[in-house]
Amino acid sequence: MKLFTDLDGVYANGVACGIKKHKKDLAYIYVPNASGSAGVFTQNLCAASCVHHSRVAMKKNVVKAVVVNSGNANCYTGKQGDQDTKTMAKAAAKALNLRPAEVAVASTGIIGKNLPIQMMEQAILDLCAKGTDKDAIAAAEAILTVDLVTKLVYKTKRIGKKEIVVAGMSKGSGMIAPNMATTLSFLVTNATLNNDQCYSFLKSAIDDSLNMVTLDTDTSTNDMVLLFATGEKKFALNSKAETEAFQALMDEACVDLAKQMARDGEGASKLIEVRVNGATSKVDARTIAKNIVASPLVKTAVSAASANWGRLVMAIGKDPSVKVNPSKLDISVGDVALVKSGQPLEVAAKESEAAMKGDYVIITVDLNLSSKSATAWGCDLTNEFIRINAEYN
Amino acid sequence: MKLFTDLDGVYANGVACGIKKHKKDLAYIYVPNASGSAGVFTQNLCAASCVHHSRVAMKKNVVKAVVVNSGNANCYTGKQGDQDTKTMAKAAAKALNLRPAEVAVASTGIIGKNLPIQMMEQAILDLCAKGTDKDAIAAAEAILTVDLVTKLVYKTKRIGKKEIVVAGMSKGSGMIAPNMATTLSFLVTNATLNNDQCYSFLKSAIDDSLNMVTLDTDTSTNDMVLLFATGEKKFALNSKAETEAFQALMDEACVDLAKQMARDGEGASKLIEVRVNGATSKVDARTIAKNIVASPLVKTAVSAASANWGRLVMAIGKDPSVKVNPSKLDISVGDVALVKSGQPLEVAAKESEAAMKGDYVIITVDLNLSSKSATAWGCDLTNEFIRINAEYN
Repeated sequence: MKLFTDLDGVYANGVACGIKKHKKDLAYIYVPNASGSAGVFTQNLCAASCVHHSRVAMKKNVVKAVVVNSGNANCYTGKQGDQDTKTMAKAAAKALNLRPAEVAVASTGIIGKNLPIQMMEQAILDLCAKGTDKDAIAAAEAILTVDLVTKLVYKTKRIGKKEIVVAGMSKGSGMIAPNMATTLSFLVTNATLNNDQCYSFLKSAIDDSLNMVTLDTDTSTNDMVLLFATGEKKFALNSKAETEAFQALMDEACVDLAKQMARDGEGASKLIEVRVNGATSKVDARTIAKNIVASPLVKTAVSAASANWGRLVMAIGKDPSVKVNPSKLDISVGDVALVKSGQPLEVAAKESEAAMKGDYVIITVDLNLSSKSATAWGCDLTNEFIRINAEYN
Repeated sequence: MKLFTDLDGVYANGVACGIKKHKKDLAYIYVPNASGSAGVFTQNLCAASCVHHSRVAMKKNVVKAVVVNSGNANCYTGKQGDQDTKTMAKAAAKALNLRPAEVAVASTGIIGKNLPIQMMEQAILDLCAKGTDKDAIAAAEAILTVDLVTKLVYKTKRIGKKEIVVAGMSKGSGMIAPNMATTLSFLVTNATLNNDQCYSFLKSAIDDSLNMVTLDTDTSTNDMVLLFATGEKKFALNSKAETEAFQALMDEACVDLAKQMARDGEGASKLIEVRVNGATSKVDARTIAKNIVASPLVKTAVSAASANWGRLVMAIGKDPSVKVNPSKLDISVGDVALVKSGQPLEVAAKESEAAMKGDYVIITVDLNLSSKSATAWGCDLTNEFIRINAEYN
């Protein structure tokens, strides 16, 4: 598989600087000739200082690099924490010959502990010293927390006469119920886009992808998704066909990362995809899809491949602000129809349980009210989730 | 302890009619001379037919009895389900010499399966034949699902010159994140109240008690809280002091049941109480308290007595609609202050872990913005929750 560092003008690397024991924990991405950049950030009111720093940087500048650490979120760490974020940006900027305001900062890990900043400052200077590394895998490893696997994506599409690419990496695993942003994701494209264009494509893509992943209903303090455009290839931004093609490419990359993230949720043994069709509004479709995939009772039923589909009915109706007519529902799991026009079907327990046995369970709900749809992704809930989260500190 | 059947004019019993194997599953309460009654019901859009029946009955009549079954929610069971609810009401009405519209119906258990109604009809006729039983404990046992213990309450207060009582029973355990009603609770008072008065006192009480319990973020399709007034004792409904005293008594009874319910949540090893003070609005205080107590990451941390207080900061900020100033927060667990005016305190890990070790963990958050407060109750998240819910069907 190709990696985001295969793009011209995109550099990255990751190392172990000592925040974690024995694991990589510091990474950078550098796009020296970026034509544009954008970020979407968590709405958590107790967001970390790196979120504030990066939000401002993205608003005011074409950001050309991001420095990321894992193992410590540098969140709720007072003035020292703010200072440490600045120190990270300054060190990377110094090494890469940028202004600190051109460097985004991202941190992930435990909340409420100060960073070992002195050690990190030197490590950033060393890591970014050349700025010509092409090691996407090392970078993808260095941003993980309790993730089991790296999450990388590389999607390509011919738009006009150009081969356009959207590629990147994510970390996921825990504290994932996005509110306008989800976990840490870093994307690059070889297209020529300015900041506003980057933001518009990014925002639209994540609303139907990364923002539709909910693993544990908790919203991180440190989430951000950043996009950098290398400016290498122009497509016709005034052509509806070409902008739609680019948006589709962007969507595809983000959906791919969303699914990788859901599949590697803390303790997950299954990826759950919930498709809601026939809703009166997009908001309703999204709300219901997320309520189903977030329900602990649905998640445990899927984990055990139990045909307790009544819990789906509960989850469909749990938010009284949506429009639902219980007597119109169609519900199926995989290819097995369980409910048709509000009537439970005579399905052998065996058959419906079999539909939940695989490691990729698709639940489809048709509200049969109108034409709006949404898809959400999540994972089952297992003992392993409890173990991981009881021990994490 | 006194029981609700110790009140004059309140009758109840419970039996095993065969819905469950080897356990009681059918109960009634009968208040033949009720002066008033009221109910508050789940807002789930896929609510069971018993919710619709009982809501209408409570609106139009002084309801004098309720018949309850456990082991099957009779929800999403089509027209047969509607018919079965009516059959339950009719059978109880026949035995107790009431109109069916004077009998509320409640069901709890699995969703999507039809009741064994023929067997139940005869069982209801037999159970309610005398209507003079005084077995509150049998009734409290018969309404349980995966609850480990019965939940009974009996609170008394001298109001004016009268000894006023509010007493009752609940079932809890799973699918509990109330939206205007929580699980099944049945209350009686010996006060003289009409329907409107019953509703007003009940609604106010549960908003700060049963509606502040969230065990798994899932909202049941069958929740209801019913109140019956025997009409035995009058207090001065035009006296602010006496109505406030009665409200306080009602609140006390409901908070007691709320805490019993949280302590016996599925798989729970600890009762968690979250007190939020200093909020700008009551809504904000309730939202934040519920977000903390519902967070799986907070719940697993409490379960393991891990001093990972950063997760509290995450949960405080997770709903961007509330007003929070991170730099003003005070946070403590038990008697141990962890954060003061937004500054993490130097607390030995040992000390803060000790504060989480007991089976009743109190988390206090002061937003230091204004004067509004709320308290929420929940439980920790353990492997036992996973086991119960994977197996339940």
